[in-house]
Amino acid sequence: TLSVITSCLSSQLLGSLSSDEAAPGQKQGPTFKDGRRRVDYVLTYHIQKPQSVRRNTSRFSGSRVLRSLRQTLSLSKSPAMPPPKIDPEIAAQEHRLDYHEDDKRFRQNEFEDNLREMGLELEKDEGNKIPGIGFVKIHAPWNVLCREAEFMKLKMPTRKVYEVKQGSNLVEKINLFIHKVTEPLHPKVESNKPQNVKPLSYPFSREKQHLFDLSDRESFFDSKTRASIVSTRSASVMRITSLLGNGVYTAAYPLHDVGFDNISLLSPQLLYEEWASYSVFYKYQPIGLIRKYFGDKIGLYFAWLGIYTQMLIPAAIVGVIVFLYGCATVDDNIPSMEICDPRNNITMCPMCDRACSYWKLREACGTARASHLFDNPATVFFSIFMALWAAMFMEHWKRRQMRLNYIWDLTGFEEEEDHRRAEYELRVMKKTLKKQHKSTQRLPLNKKYQSKRDTALPYCNSLTPHTSSHLYKSHRQRLRRLLTPLQVSVTFAIVFGVILYRISIRAALHMSSNPSNIRATVKGTAAVINLIVIIIMDEVYGALARWLTLLEIPKTDKSFEERLIFKTFVLKFVNAFTPIVYLAFFRGRLDLFYFPDDLFTTKRDTCAHAGCLMELCIQLCITMLGKQLIQNNLFEIIIPKIKKLIRRRKSDMDSQQQEDYNLTLQRYEKDHFLGPFEGLSPEYMEMIIQFGMVTLFVASFPLAPLFALLNNIIEIRLDAKKFVTELRRPIAARAKDIGIWYNLLRGLSKVAVIVNAFVISFTSDFIPRLVYQYMYSSDGSMHGFVNHTLSYFNVTEFQPGTAPLQPLHLGYEVELCRYKDYREPPWSNTPYDLSKEFWAILACRLAFVIVFQNVVMLMSDFVDWLIPDIPKDISMQIHKEKILMVELFMKEEKGKKRLRENHSNQSPVQPRCRPSSQETSNC
Amino acid sequence: TLSVITSCLSSQLLGSLSSDEAAPGQKQGPTFKDGRRRVDYVLTYHIQKPQSVRRNTSRFSGSRVLRSLRQTLSLSKSPAMPPPKIDPEIAAQEHRLDYHEDDKRFRQNEFEDNLREMGLELEKDEGNKIPGIGFVKIHAPWNVLCREAEFMKLKMPTRKVYEVKQGSNLVEKINLFIHKVTEPLHPKVESNKPQNVKPLSYPFSREKQHLFDLSDRESFFDSKTRASIVSTRSASVMRITSLLGNGVYTAAYPLHDVGFDNISLLSPQLLYEEWASYSVFYKYQPIGLIRKYFGDKIGLYFAWLGIYTQMLIPAAIVGVIVFLYGCATVDDNIPSMEICDPRNNITMCPMCDRACSYWKLREACGTARASHLFDNPATVFFSIFMALWAAMFMEHWKRRQMRLNYIWDLTGFEEEEDHRRAEYELRVMKKTLKKQHKSTQRLPLNKKYQSKRDTALPYCNSLTPHTSSHLYKSHRQRLRRLLTPLQVSVTFAIVFGVILYRISIRAALHMSSNPSNIRATVKGTAAVINLIVIIIMDEVYGALARWLTLLEIPKTDKSFEERLIFKTFVLKFVNAFTPIVYLAFFRGRLDLFYFPDDLFTTKRDTCAHAGCLMELCIQLCITMLGKQLIQNNLFEIIIPKIKKLIRRRKSDMDSQQQEDYNLTLQRYEKDHFLGPFEGLSPEYMEMIIQFGMVTLFVASFPLAPLFALLNNIIEIRLDAKKFVTELRRPIAARAKDIGIWYNLLRGLSKVAVIVNAFVISFTSDFIPRLVYQYMYSSDGSMHGFVNHTLSYFNVTEFQPGTAPLQPLHLGYEVELCRYKDYREPPWSNTPYDLSKEFWAILACRLAFVIVFQNVVMLMSDFVDWLIPDIPKDISMQIHKEKILMVELFMKEEKGKKRLRENHSNQSPVQPRCRPSSQETSNC
Repeated sequence: TLSVITSCLSSQLLGSLSSDEAAPGQKQGPTFKDGRRRVDYVLTYHIQKPQSVRRNTSRFSGSRVLRSLRQTLSLSKSPAMPPPKIDPEIAAQEHRLDYHEDDKRFRQNEFEDNLREMGLELEKDEGNKIPGIGFVKIHAPWNVLCREAEFMKLKMPTRKVYEVKQGSNLVEKINLFIHKVTEPLHPKVESNKPQNVKPLSYPFSREKQHLFDLSDRESFFDSKTRASIVSTRSASVMRITSLLGNGVYTAAYPLHDVGFDNISLLSPQLLYEEWASYSVFYKYQPIGLIRKYFGDKIGLYFAWLGIYTQMLIPAAIVGVIVFLYGCATVDDNIPSMEICDPRNNITMCPMCDRACSYWKLREACGTARASHLFDNPATVFFSIFMALWAAMFMEHWKRRQMRLNYIWDLTGFEEEEDHRRAEYELRVMKKTLKKQHKSTQRLPLNKKYQSKRDTALPYCNSLTPHTSSHLYKSHRQRLRRLLTPLQVSVTFAIVFGVILYRISIRAALHMSSNPSNIRATVKGTAAVINLIVIIIMDEVYGALARWLTLLEIPKTDKSFEERLIFKTFVLKFVNAFTPIVYLAFFRGRLDLFYFPDDLFTTKRDTCAHAGCLMELCIQLCITMLGKQLIQNNLFEIIIPKIKKLIRRRKSDMDSQQQEDYNLTLQRYEKDHFLGPFEGLSPEYMEMIIQFGMVTLFVASFPLAPLFALLNNIIEIRLDAKKFVTELRRPIAARAKDIGIWYNLLRGLSKVAVIVNAFVISFTSDFIPRLVYQYMYSSDGSMHGFVNHTLSYFNVTEFQPGTAPLQPLHLGYEVELCRYKDYREPPWSNTPYDLSKEFWAILACRLAFVIVFQNVVMLMSDFVDWLIPDIPKDISMQIHKEKILMVELFMKEEKGKKRLRENHSNQSPVQPRCRPSSQETSNC
Repeated sequence: TLSVITSCLSSQLLGSLSSDEAAPGQKQGPTFKDGRRRVDYVLTYHIQKPQSVRRNTSRFSGSRVLRSLRQTLSLSKSPAMPPPKIDPEIAAQEHRLDYHEDDKRFRQNEFEDNLREMGLELEKDEGNKIPGIGFVKIHAPWNVLCREAEFMKLKMPTRKVYEVKQGSNLVEKINLFIHKVTEPLHPKVESNKPQNVKPLSYPFSREKQHLFDLSDRESFFDSKTRASIVSTRSASVMRITSLLGNGVYTAAYPLHDVGFDNISLLSPQLLYEEWASYSVFYKYQPIGLIRKYFGDKIGLYFAWLGIYTQMLIPAAIVGVIVFLYGCATVDDNIPSMEICDPRNNITMCPMCDRACSYWKLREACGTARASHLFDNPATVFFSIFMALWAAMFMEHWKRRQMRLNYIWDLTGFEEEEDHRRAEYELRVMKKTLKKQHKSTQRLPLNKKYQSKRDTALPYCNSLTPHTSSHLYKSHRQRLRRLLTPLQVSVTFAIVFGVILYRISIRAALHMSSNPSNIRATVKGTAAVINLIVIIIMDEVYGALARWLTLLEIPKTDKSFEERLIFKTFVLKFVNAFTPIVYLAFFRGRLDLFYFPDDLFTTKRDTCAHAGCLMELCIQLCITMLGKQLIQNNLFEIIIPKIKKLIRRRKSDMDSQQQEDYNLTLQRYEKDHFLGPFEGLSPEYMEMIIQFGMVTLFVASFPLAPLFALLNNIIEIRLDAKKFVTELRRPIAARAKDIGIWYNLLRGLSKVAVIVNAFVISFTSDFIPRLVYQYMYSSDGSMHGFVNHTLSYFNVTEFQPGTAPLQPLHLGYEVELCRYKDYREPPWSNTPYDLSKEFWAILACRLAFVIVFQNVVMLMSDFVDWLIPDIPKDISMQIHKEKILMVELFMKEEKGKKRLRENHSNQSPVQPRCRPSSQETSNC
């Protein structure tokens, strides 16, 4: 009985409060001029002056067509606002030049009328302090918010709270203990404390509004939700992105929450102190707060970045240990000892034709010792560890994501509607117009408008251009289907072209240079040059990917984003990893194809004696450090500062004037000066490439996780600062996961297994050492390994003109010199052929690759299978929530039933009231 | 205005029809004795006689504890029915022996009271024609159905229909054309015709009941839905499965729909004619109908089986072509030509010690020619094809599943609640009792009941034993966590033990037998024996898996099922594939480990000259055919028939009497005689093992898909017959996908790639032939290949006692004989060592494995990426549905708004009605 009465009362109460009122003492932040209605969203536009016309003709004609089509459409739509009835083709041809500004104003008015029609309240502000810019402030009244929340099925907290149990007593105690120990690491934010009660959430519905605590209407929907409701609504009324793209509006953004006294939890000040500051670098991020302020998508990004950074800690520690192990064992390493042994008297063949002479193997002592740092058994362990680490990371993230989904009430939420892209719609509309034109020409005049209406009527606004897209598709689809694989192959062709070009250049350079000069320092400079090329090409490739994706005209925003990300990723990834892959796998091996007859000469671009691993390591080190330093610091810190400076210079004010001026500005005007939010793709991309560096060649560079860790600690705070202080507030986007990035990560960690297998077996000397130890060594030790890897060469067999000019350089005449390869000696039946050892070692290397790849993959899959995707306590709580919800409804049910029985037994006197009440109806 | 009025009217109307009425002329099938209320669900129980007591003590004590706990619980629950207030411990000890039947009756009554409490209507029937069996017929009245449908969020069709567009005009035309061409292949069922309109579906809600067409209440929820509602409700009130397990009830089933005149579409007769008949074997299955009658889960199984069978057609065709290619090229195959050449004069070493003698290679001619059928380049192509086929199949199924989800309105439906298993609860309760016992002993007496109530009160029925499970967990969890990996390792240990045992047996048999007798016929018998072992072990392993899973006491039904399936799969899979794997990879290679010194003797269990592939093929062929024939025909057809016969014998009636008796039986009594439905696992398992046969060793047996295809055509109809005529109607389970089976399929198709890579490179002679052709052949042809694969053996070097007894068997004295291996000749420096060719070929084989595995995996992933998971037209229609739904609500919204405005402007005279109406409230 009670529940019905309360709901009756509350709806009566709500009915009387139909417009918004705020308590007079409360400061509500930026409001309309009446001081009451909050500004939820802002659109800006150029106030029309002649100098603001600077769009190109192609866009112009596009917008014209669009506009004329809209006219046609609105013809059949809103009889309240009769548009000029002109045949669009003729009209467009007549007013080719001076229609533009009118067109924009017309579409602005149309859009704003539509918004008002939907119940939103608008206020224009043109006489403000920023010349040339007009603002449209939008306020969503309570009933619009309710309606939209219901349509979007937003899960809102109900009045019902329940106790959250973290597993058994023991688990709970341990959790509490851990939380206490890590107390200083947690940000000082209330929401981060472990909470014992959680409100039950339920998709908002006006029919079930008695479930929700609507006492404080102002804060029931927070500013993030309000803004996202307005932006969703305006996106579905008419494509706001297309209006932005066509210059009808210049920007659209919600406001930062500065100046709200009553909702201090959300103030950016707190975010700034507890998150966007380098002084809290050691702390966890206040993810809940970030999500509350910026929305799920950005919250997920920072949560992901946090988990990644956290997971890097153990990897970095193990990496450092592995490196230290290499340092510690460098003196016990028999092969390098043998090389450095003063009694070692092996004469090596010259490293190049004519100019170089014979040399003593002892000279390679330093390189051999250095190589051991990165080429020891611990490296193999480390790369297996890192493969499993990657699997663990993916699992950990899945669980974390699930937990966040639960805490943020995203469970059961379906992916949001996908908006069609403006460019795609433009094409569709052009096509439709053309088609209509044709059909109207064919049809008799009285059917002309009829046919147009047929096409336009069912979906009269741009919400669903299905009919038109369908027309368009039948014509264009085949071509577009061809285009997609074409684009992919173009991407790959570019990639391969660049690879080949760069490899050839490298090979040419190496062959012409004097190899005796190639020392670590020289290699370092080469790596630096490489780095610069990489950074420049990164920008080029970014633009290229964008261009290629634009050519494709993807249908929806989401598919555009995914395609762009994929292309950018492929190009940038290949760009970053080409030199490394070359060093790891092709250096000194490619020339086999160049000089098949010359096998036993010494022309090849070989690495220093003790393997290519060290060079690879230098290259990786410089690329990683350099890329991070330059791209992070230069691009993300210094360039924005310079931009700001330039902007300030332009405005012709000194800093005092500027500050005074700033003080007079309204919040929405201040926000206008901030940079626009351009999506998370660049941030993610940077991290993914870094993830590649950390996992892909980890076998050759165990310090990579450490470098990544240090970088990320800075990166988090840097990004945080950017989001809080330098960018306009982004529209809160709902998201359950990190989307395509997860797949890219997954792909990378798979590729990493294979790459590491190859690095260990082919780039390092791990397999040859093992094979020697177990197959050839007389006493099972590594003694004699160096000798075993060197083949003999008879100096009388130098090809004419290639013998060294100074054969007596070492002080004695050389008859046989040695070179690093497994070949038959001159005295065998088949001199200089690949020897049996070569094939045996090759077989072992390949076998290792197979075993490593499959074992590690199996272990990763096992880790994947072992760790449940949904944490146990979360799945228990979801279960509990469901049951509580059912219980709640059952109780309500029984209450109603009793009420009904009472009604029918005692008071059959209100027959007019019952039928209209859905709630008390029978069923 | 209208909508509110109609809803008012309709609810008034519904109010007056609160109990169920049926038009008098309509025959409604099985009803209660009043002839009006339909029987939705039937429970059966033994009418208590002394001879029906045959449960063991452990179960007894379990049920006793359960019962006494229930007493304690109900103590605090339903004051309407006061149970005897006895301390459970004491009571249980007192009535140890003769409490049992009373206990059952008590629990029956308790359960039935609960059902009545929930609003269900029950009718008992003990005086029926089947002695000793009592029936409880359950009927769900309309308001219970409505309530439960709302809780279960069942999507029901609304009044609103919309036009379904199948892509563009062209696509639509093509689809129509295809449909016309395949017309004879479609079953003659109305629902299978392409429909142009589809009703919009929406989760049923009593608040939105104006959306639904409730004019025909009897058929709004079909019999399947009614039964599943009753079963869900009774499962949540008190665990029906636990009651069944404890023998309180003997069976619980819904009724077959025989005798419904008004819903003829669903009659099993139609299913029988158009589906469960061999005469329609070439037709598509009426999936929609199957799902309507049996529910989503069984519908999905048959849809999956259909897709699988359909996909086997192209695979079978290509397989046959590959086989025919082998047949056609057998005469052009140079190696077998060389072997069969009469000029070929190669003397081979004896195949065994002493007894065997030298032989001519010519004798192996037949085997060599036969081997070519399965060992030719086309096989390599075919195994790549099949890997891609498997990827395509998975994709195709995903799309099909998505389409079915859409058609069956399952999109957006969340996985159903997972029920805890009775055994698990029993344990939990025991533990709780023990704990309570302890705590009550410690606590003062007045707190005794208090503490019990604390534990029992919050979740008073078995819906949520969270508190108790939590108590239980803290104690037991660590042990159980240890148990799970232990179980897994036990499973694997058993598997490996059996593998080793069988391999040893095989090896021993082969070594002792006279190898000259090992011909294809002998191998055939060996394969048959193997087959019998496999079939017997299959049953043993099935029981073993069940036992192991029971030991684990999984928490929920779903996890029980998944664990059981996984274990059964591993055991059965290993059982079926051990001999095949042995033949493919270990035969003739294992002995390397047995006789490391004896390498160059001829003791090894080698295959016939031209490779093991043919033997592998014979084994596969016999296993597949035999397994399918015996398990299908014998187990699924003949044994059930025999069982039926025996049952009939027992009942002491001749067939005429039987028929007369049958005619007098009610529907629910007839169904009682049918077999119980025992889940889909055996059906799926059989198919998955078959899928393994088809994909795993396809490189060695290209006819496998054909055999599978033929089998499945029969299998579909066989299963159909079983479901329609021989089993009780299963409870319709909701499911969106085929669950764990999909993962197993995916795993298999991944393993298949690796296995095929190894079969091609190690079992077949493909790689040695290639290597010979490109590295060793003088003229690039295969001439001389046979000679190249044979090594030399000096007969003077036979170990004492191993030389053949009849050295002159061939008519001349042999000095050097040949054997198949790559080893150094006797005259080299290292006689009988593995030669350089061996290592080179090994390296090539391994390289091939790496390349094959990664290329095929990449291609599979590419196929996966290329084909969108959701078919385009379906995603478009889902989009459209969403928009239509929003439009519908917006229209309603506007209607209400106008109504409200009218109300407030014109008629502010009904103030007592408005507040209680949720619908017209403001927001």
